Amino acid sequence: MSKIVKTPKPPYYTVIFTSIRTEGDNGYDEMANQMAELSAEQTGFLGMEHARSEGLSVTICYWENLEAIDKWRENAEHKLAQAKGYEMWYQAFATRVCKVERDNIFEQK
Amino acid sequence: MSKIVKTPKPPYYTVIFTSIRTEGDNGYDEMANQMAELSAEQTGFLGMEHARSEGLSVTICYWENLEAIDKWRENAEHKLAQAKGYEMWYQAFATRVCKVERDNIFEQK
Repeated sequence: MSKIVKTPKPPYYTVIFTSIRTEGDNGYDEMANQMAELSAEQTGFLGMEHARSEGLSVTICYWENLEAIDKWRENAEHKLAQAKGYEMWYQAFATRVCKVERDNIFEQK
Repeated sequence: MSKIVKTPKPPYYTVIFTSIRTEGDNGYDEMANQMAELSAEQTGFLGMEHARSEGLSVTICYWENLEAIDKWRENAEHKLAQAKGYEMWYQAFATRVCKVERDNIFEQK
């Protein structure tokens, strides 16, 4: 089961990636798994939350700071995946870089 | 099918709500539909993206500014829903208030 990421005290950063896929796999799943593993190894990575339903996929990646996000964006393997994303995997997507200013994290006792 | 929200040029704001439910419905679905309708009527509401899988639900709500978010948080019907959320609907949740600093929105031609 997916988990809610235990983030530090704000401010920290997040990239919200919402996407609608094209038909077929076309190597997507393999790449998505690779990118999930690779991003988790980057300096400043805090965690990832993911859900997908009714054609919409949402991936929320948490990072310590903007520098970590910019470095990951420029990662060579990630750039290849991005290029294929534009070319064949996504019908539409939005990438949003955000500063988390406050949060409220609750867990039932 | 869910859609990617057409947001204005940054900065704008977002509330990321990730949650893991308790067992059973307990009136949840009806409330969730009511809150989705009611939030969409609020001043400053820009749109909502939602996905749910493997037990994790992600709702991303976009807003023009922090004032709109604070006003919605204090809405009387919403406060009742929040109270029930703590009491019975959620095993765990995180609410994160974020400033969207930059974005990249793509649609296949």
